[in-house]
Amino acid sequence: MGFINCVNVSMVSNLINYPLILVNLKSYSETMGAKAEELAEITQKISSDTGIRIGLAPQFTDIQRLKRFEIPIFSQHIDGIFPGAHTGHILAEAVKSSGSVGTILNHSERRMLLSDIESALKRTKEVDLISVVCVNTTNVGMAVAAFDPDIIAIEPPELIGTGIAVSKAKPEIILESVEAIKRINKNVTVLCGAGITCGEDVFSAIKLGSSGVLVASGIVKASNWKNILQEFADAALKAKKDEGTE
Amino acid sequence: MGFINCVNVSMVSNLINYPLILVNLKSYSETMGAKAEELAEITQKISSDTGIRIGLAPQFTDIQRLKRFEIPIFSQHIDGIFPGAHTGHILAEAVKSSGSVGTILNHSERRMLLSDIESALKRTKEVDLISVVCVNTTNVGMAVAAFDPDIIAIEPPELIGTGIAVSKAKPEIILESVEAIKRINKNVTVLCGAGITCGEDVFSAIKLGSSGVLVASGIVKASNWKNILQEFADAALKAKKDEGTE
Amino acid sequence: MGFINCVNVSMVSNLINYPLILVNLKSYSETMGAKAEELAEITQKISSDTGIRIGLAPQFTDIQRLKRFEIPIFSQHIDGIFPGAHTGHILAEAVKSSGSVGTILNHSERRMLLSDIESALKRTKEVDLISVVCVNTTNVGMAVAAFDPDIIAIEPPELIGTGIAVSKAKPEIILESVEAIKRINKNVTVLCGAGITCGEDVFSAIKLGSSGVLVASGIVKASNWKNILQEFADAALKAKKDEGTE
Amino acid sequence: MGFINCVNVSMVSNLINYPLILVNLKSYSETMGAKAEELAEITQKISSDTGIRIGLAPQFTDIQRLKRFEIPIFSQHIDGIFPGAHTGHILAEAVKSSGSVGTILNHSERRMLLSDIESALKRTKEVDLISVVCVNTTNVGMAVAAFDPDIIAIEPPELIGTGIAVSKAKPEIILESVEAIKRINKNVTVLCGAGITCGEDVFSAIKLGSSGVLVASGIVKASNWKNILQEFADAALKAKKDEGTE
Repeated sequence: MGFINCVNVSMVSNLINYPLILVNLKSYSETMGAKAEELAEITQKISSDTGIRIGLAPQFTDIQRLKRFEIPIFSQHIDGIFPGAHTGHILAEAVKSSGSVGTILNHSERRMLLSDIESALKRTKEVDLISVVCVNTTNVGMAVAAFDPDIIAIEPPELIGTGIAVSKAKPEIILESVEAIKRINKNVTVLCGAGITCGEDVFSAIKLGSSGVLVASGIVKASNWKNILQEFADAALKAKKDEGTE
Repeated sequence: MGFINCVNVSMVSNLINYPLILVNLKSYSETMGAKAEELAEITQKISSDTGIRIGLAPQFTDIQRLKRFEIPIFSQHIDGIFPGAHTGHILAEAVKSSGSVGTILNHSERRMLLSDIESALKRTKEVDLISVVCVNTTNVGMAVAAFDPDIIAIEPPELIGTGIAVSKAKPEIILESVEAIKRINKNVTVLCGAGITCGEDVFSAIKLGSSGVLVASGIVKASNWKNILQEFADAALKAKKDEGTE
Repeated sequence: MGFINCVNVSMVSNLINYPLILVNLKSYSETMGAKAEELAEITQKISSDTGIRIGLAPQFTDIQRLKRFEIPIFSQHIDGIFPGAHTGHILAEAVKSSGSVGTILNHSERRMLLSDIESALKRTKEVDLISVVCVNTTNVGMAVAAFDPDIIAIEPPELIGTGIAVSKAKPEIILESVEAIKRINKNVTVLCGAGITCGEDVFSAIKLGSSGVLVASGIVKASNWKNILQEFADAALKAKKDEGTE
Repeated sequence: MGFINCVNVSMVSNLINYPLILVNLKSYSETMGAKAEELAEITQKISSDTGIRIGLAPQFTDIQRLKRFEIPIFSQHIDGIFPGAHTGHILAEAVKSSGSVGTILNHSERRMLLSDIESALKRTKEVDLISVVCVNTTNVGMAVAAFDPDIIAIEPPELIGTGIAVSKAKPEIILESVEAIKRINKNVTVLCGAGITCGEDVFSAIKLGSSGVLVASGIVKASNWKNILQEFADAALKAKKDEGTE
C-alpha cells in the first residue's frame, strides 16, 4: 500500500504527473530572459534523467522563450477575463498559446477576489490549462476545493522565502489540509510550499501526503541549479519509490 | 509658424518621433499571437513607406514575438517593483529585455494607485523605457505632469470603444489639456485617444495640438488593417506637412 | 412537514430569527441620517406587530443613530483587521460597540479577496457578530460555506437593482444553492436577494427554500416605507405559517 | 518677518486655523467609542485654553459621538462616489451630516487610485469638507497640488509609527515639499507627519515651514493624553508666537 497521492495520473494531455516539482521564478532577475532558458535546459535534462516532472513558472514575457523545452510551463497568474477590451490583463488564451500548460492563481503575492478566482478557474477549464491555486490556510483550501481546481498549493505565507520548510515547521498543516481538501473534493491534488530548500524538505513534504512542492527562492537563489534540482528530483524519486515498494 | 508638438524629437534612442500613432492591442483575440505578427508586418511596411512612427502595445506574452519588427513595441502596463519576490507582476526589466521600448501606465482599464504611478515611472527612467501615462481628465493630466513622464495620453473613458472621436466630441479637452499639461511640464508630449476610427479623427487630433493618437478597436477591429493604417498614417503625414509649410 | 429553513433558531443572543428580511441601505441618500431613523422607527413597529425579524444595514456613520431601536442593525462591511494602525478601515470591534449585531461581507459592490473573507469571518466570530456573506453563484456559496459563516446571501449580480426578482427569474439558483450550501455546511442559513420588490417575491423566495431576503432599492426607493415593509412582513409571515400548518 | 504658513486663514466656515494639530485615531482600540469621547473632552479643553486648533479623525462609526465637541472632526477616508448603490462605501454627505468638517484622503494605510483621488476631492468641494491628502514624497505632493486640495500632509511612510520624527530625520523633505507644493498651487496648506512624539517635533515641523502636524500613535499611545496634548499645543503656540514677534 502506498501514497495514493503519488500515483501517476493522466491529466490535461499527460503533461503532468506526480510527484511534481513546480518552480516559481517570480520576478527574480536571476531567472529572467536568457537565464530562464538556461534553467529550463538544466530542468529538462534532470527531468528526463529522473523521470520526475519539474515545471517552471517564468515571467509572462518569458513564456514564449521556454516553449521549446520539454517541461511543463506555467503562467504566474491569469485574470478571469474573456478576449476583449482589457488593457494590461493576463488572458487565458494568451498564456496558453504562448506555450503554458497551466497557471498559478491567488499566490500570496497576487491575492485575488473570491469572485475572480471562480471566473479565472472557469477560464482555465475552457482553454484547458492546469490550475494551481495557492492558499494560506486549510480553511481557504477547503473553500477553493469547491471550485474544482486541478491543484491546490498550500503555502503558509509567514514561511515564504524564509528557508524554514513548511514540512518541518508545520507538518500538521500538510496532513490536515490534504485530508480536509480531499474530503471536499477528492479530485484535487495538493502541493505544499514555503521554505523548501533541500531534498529532505521535498521528501518529507511527499511523505506527509502532498503530491509535490511549489518552490521559488530555494531553487532560483541556489548557487548551483544543476545540483539543487538533482537533489530535489532524487528526493521526489525516493519518496515515490518508497510508495511503490511498500 | 507651426505646431511645436509635431517637430521630430530625438528621444530614448531615437525610437520615437512625432506625430505618433500608438495602437493598443488590449486583450483582443484579433491581434493575439501570430495575428499580432501579421499586424506588425503591415505596420512596419506602412511606417517605413510614410515615415510616420506607429507603435504597437501587444499582450505581455506577445512582446517577444514582435521584437524582430522595426517598429516601437510598448508594454500595456508595468508595476513599480524591483526584481524579486513578486509573483504575477510586470517587471520593467522584463518588458525591456523582451523587446519593449516603452510602456503604457494607468490605462482606464488598469487604473493605478497614485503612489504606484510614481514608483512605476521611476522604474521606466531607470531602465530607459518611454512612459505613456493615460489620464481621464485635464486635472489628472496636470497631476501626472508633475512626475515628468515622457508622454501623457488623454482619453475620456466615456468615449473609449464608442467610435465617437474625442477630437470631434470634446475638441476642447485636447486644446485645454495640452495647454495645461505643458504649463506644468513643457517636456511632456500629449497624445489623445478614445473613439478614433478614421484619418479625419487623426488629422483633427493633431491639428488641435496633440502629438498623435492612442487607438485600439479603431485599428484592431477594422476589416482591413492595411487600409486603415494607411489612412491613419496619411492623415498624420498631412497634419505634419501642414505644419512644415505654414 | 415544513420548511426546516423557517424554524426559529436561537442564535447570537437571540437577535435573529427566521425568516429574516435584511434591508441594505447602501449609500442611498433616501435613508441617510435622520431618514435612517425614520425608517428604523417604522421597521421596529412592523416587526413588533408581525413578529417577523427585519434588520437594517445603514451606512457606518449611521450605526450609532440606530442603536436605540429594537431591531437588528448590520454593518455593510468589515475588514479582517485587528485594532491598530489601519486608517480608513472598518474594525469589527467598532461596528459592534456602535450597536451592530452583525455585518454584511463581500457584497457585489464591495468584493473581497478570498483571504480577507477568511480573516474578516474570524473577526466576526471573535467579537460575536452575525456574518452575512454575499455570493454571486452557487459555487462561490459552496466555497464560502467552508468558512462556516452564519448566513450566506445569494445574489445574482445581474439582477441587483433591476426589479426582476431572483425568485422569479432564477428560481433554480435558490433551490440549487440552498441544497449545495447545506451539503457543505448544514449550519449555514441561506438568504437570497436581487430584484425583490413585492410581497410575492418574498413569499416565493422562502417557499423555494431560502430563509429570508436581502433587499435594498425595493424598500429604500419605495414610495411608502410603511406599506412596503408591511407587505414584505405579511408575505414572510404567510410563508412561515404555511410551514407550521403543513 | 514670519512664517506665512502660520497666519490664521479664514476657511471652510472658520473651522480651521493654523498651526493645526490633526490627530488620526486610526483603528486603535485606545481611542474607540467612549474613549474617543474622553480624548475629545481633553482636546476641547486644551484647544480652548491655548487657542491652538486640534482636530480628531476617529473611526467612521465614532464620528457621530464626537459631534457635540467644539473641535474639528475629520473622517479618515471618503470614496469618490455619489449617493446611490454603493454598499460598504464612505459617502461624503454621510461623514458631513454625521459631524465631520473634513476628511483625510490617500493615507499610506489607505492608498487610492489617482482617478479616485480626483473624484473624492470633487466630492469634498461639493459638500464643503476640508480635504487633507496624504502623500509620501514631494513629487506626489506636487501631483496632488494640481487637484487643489485644502491641505496636503507629507508623511514618509518609512517613519510612520517609528517615533523618529520626520522633522528630525528628514527636515529637508519638509522644506522642499512646502516650497514645491506652493510653487504648483499657493493656496494649498502643508502639514507634515510621521514619527511626531513630542513638543519639540511639533515646533521644528512648523519652523521648517509646515502649518502643523498630522499625528497618530504619538498622541493615542501616550500614557497621559492631557500632558502630551498640552505639550503639543504649547509647542505650536510658541512656534506661532515666534512668527508674530519676528
